[in-house]
Amino acid sequence: MDKFTKLDLNSITSNNRMNIFNCILEAKEINRAVIAKKVGLSIPAVMSITDDLIQKGIIYVIGKGKSSGGKRPELLAVVPDRFFFVGVDVGRTSVRVVVMNNCRDVVYKVSKPTESVEPDELINQITEMTMESINESKFPLDRVVGIGVAMPGLIERGTGRVIFSPNFGWNNIALQDELKKHLPFNVLVENANRALVIGEIKNTQPNPTSCIVGVNLGYGIGSAIVLPNGLYYGVSGTSGEIGHIIVENHGSYCSCGNYGCIESIASGEAIAREARIAIANKIQSSVFEKCEGDLKKIDAKMVFDAAKEGDHLAQSIVEKAADYIGKGLAITINMLDPEQIILCGGLTLSGDFFIDMIKKAVSKYQMRYAGGNVKIVVGKSGLYATAIGGAWIVANNIDFLSSN
Amino acid sequence: MDKFTKLDLNSITSNNRMNIFNCILEAKEINRAVIAKKVGLSIPAVMSITDDLIQKGIIYVIGKGKSSGGKRPELLAVVPDRFFFVGVDVGRTSVRVVVMNNCRDVVYKVSKPTESVEPDELINQITEMTMESINESKFPLDRVVGIGVAMPGLIERGTGRVIFSPNFGWNNIALQDELKKHLPFNVLVENANRALVIGEIKNTQPNPTSCIVGVNLGYGIGSAIVLPNGLYYGVSGTSGEIGHIIVENHGSYCSCGNYGCIESIASGEAIAREARIAIANKIQSSVFEKCEGDLKKIDAKMVFDAAKEGDHLAQSIVEKAADYIGKGLAITINMLDPEQIILCGGLTLSGDFFIDMIKKAVSKYQMRYAGGNVKIVVGKSGLYATAIGGAWIVANNIDFLSSN
Repeated sequence: MDKFTKLDLNSITSNNRMNIFNCILEAKEINRAVIAKKVGLSIPAVMSITDDLIQKGIIYVIGKGKSSGGKRPELLAVVPDRFFFVGVDVGRTSVRVVVMNNCRDVVYKVSKPTESVEPDELINQITEMTMESINESKFPLDRVVGIGVAMPGLIERGTGRVIFSPNFGWNNIALQDELKKHLPFNVLVENANRALVIGEIKNTQPNPTSCIVGVNLGYGIGSAIVLPNGLYYGVSGTSGEIGHIIVENHGSYCSCGNYGCIESIASGEAIAREARIAIANKIQSSVFEKCEGDLKKIDAKMVFDAAKEGDHLAQSIVEKAADYIGKGLAITINMLDPEQIILCGGLTLSGDFFIDMIKKAVSKYQMRYAGGNVKIVVGKSGLYATAIGGAWIVANNIDFLSSN
Repeated sequence: MDKFTKLDLNSITSNNRMNIFNCILEAKEINRAVIAKKVGLSIPAVMSITDDLIQKGIIYVIGKGKSSGGKRPELLAVVPDRFFFVGVDVGRTSVRVVVMNNCRDVVYKVSKPTESVEPDELINQITEMTMESINESKFPLDRVVGIGVAMPGLIERGTGRVIFSPNFGWNNIALQDELKKHLPFNVLVENANRALVIGEIKNTQPNPTSCIVGVNLGYGIGSAIVLPNGLYYGVSGTSGEIGHIIVENHGSYCSCGNYGCIESIASGEAIAREARIAIANKIQSSVFEKCEGDLKKIDAKMVFDAAKEGDHLAQSIVEKAADYIGKGLAITINMLDPEQIILCGGLTLSGDFFIDMIKKAVSKYQMRYAGGNVKIVVGKSGLYATAIGGAWIVANNIDFLSSN
């Protein structure tokens, strides 16, 4: 809490209302007495807020529960289609959009190839796909709370300006402001790694007791840190750059300008490149057959497939990648002692053998006694996790309950 | 904020009272109208709380301020000797105790050699030095809010139990409970790195806007992370183990059981050891004269002094240490993007040349664009910083304002 944070009656009401709403959302069906117990308020106080939420059409009486002696209590539930949240994952190869209702169910999703990396054209594509998705899901526009846009790169906090996005070659693009000109609701632009971790933890543990780190193992390598009060940013918003930890002094050149970064050896792009170089140097490998002799076609999946089949070159490339990633996770554990590390992204789709290699490397590099309670798990939200995270960021950050 | 955190009128009152007290503490002398403006309360609300604090003897009217038209407003100030906080730094070579008054001034301090590492004997020494310090400072015992004990090693949060302290050879010692049996006030046991960083940031920036990392460069190497709502612990309380980040795969053996940790090359102990090994192997160095030919006497200070004088061996040892530390700080910046890194501990006393080497290494290993606003500074609180931090931890965590 800031030193002079003022708590007043408005913030109490708003806090109580959100607690009660989240309580109903989590329980799906619940009576007022149980809500009162869970949120620590009196039954009359709960009634006053639930009456207001019913009147606003945000919750409704879904039926009657079991009697515990007296008359059967009313069960309350969230009205699914009172509010909607849109999430957009702006990827280098595809743009994904989801529409999420107020029960946090995804009611519509779509993916299209990224048409252009030019800011104007990409902004048009985002706008069009968003409006099409809302039309397709057939819900009135005035029920859309907002859109959360997940963008790779360095995003200025608050303004949603893209300071630097190497994958798109963007510098200083006011993405959030531009989208606001085209869209008639709230727009929030967030770093893609942060959206991804929110998309992953949404159902299991939206409020960690200490810290959750989500690590995105894909074309590049990044991470996001979630603390009990939400996403952690750092003073400039650049926290979580796990991919650019240097683990080898005279290692490979990395796109960031340094040498020996984790990303320079362990990213999907690096794994494919290492195979390409080795095969061009006449090293025997079944990857050569998989790419049909066209080295440019080699991707990380081919290398993982070959490694699973016992190919020596592919195995050594994948093992080195796992070792680098394991070092990065061990460092994260030493420094942050998180309760959970969630591995996400394309590289985690290659199966348990890679995850097992990573875990083995972590235990080799982790400090004894440190981080004894850390769980390393694999994300489960699939290809739309980042877009879903974008929608959740809107739901978490816009006070839609106070609207009329 | 936890999902179902309840805000009630008691928490508002307590929060407002603490805001007003901190406001007076910070300003030293201040009138009620300015307080009201700073904390965002009405003047009558401020009056009600300041009247209560005056009645309890916690603040008093120190005089009258300048008139801004009407009559001259009363200036309020904190009563220095209404409450006291004791801090104890339990080091491997010495035990330091400070007594701090309610204006946060250190009114008494003392240091004695650590008599024993046996738990019972050390607990006796802490108890005796604490009671002696209170007697010496001639303040009534019932004004002592509590004692904050800074202990190296892994401390269980909440219980203050020492899970593991390698420097003392302790496993599973209920230090906080044992001290409570001997002392008639609150006892809080905290990890020494966390106490040190609190001791350093107390005056300048007690509530960081994002994150402050304090790094203790001494006999060992550790760190503590401070977030806007206070010290960060992690799920098991083991966060901040920067010294055991592995920066060289086949590096030196480290006391933690791994190889190539930052601490294995860059700690005060490692710097002295490297010089001992080299000189035993007949490498020419002025450190040999400094230790008068007795290699066992070599300590880090001798190596730093020799390096400053241009000794080649000493320079290469110190440069390697700075390089390792710089890597650890660059990793910290990539991951946490803190607003400030405070370097503390014995090694920082060797002067600017070492700090400059570290900063150079940081800029070599830091990711471009990441952590652009991080300031690396040297702690200023001297040898008693850790003990002072212990006293602040009591002041920050015990709600002494609500007592009668």
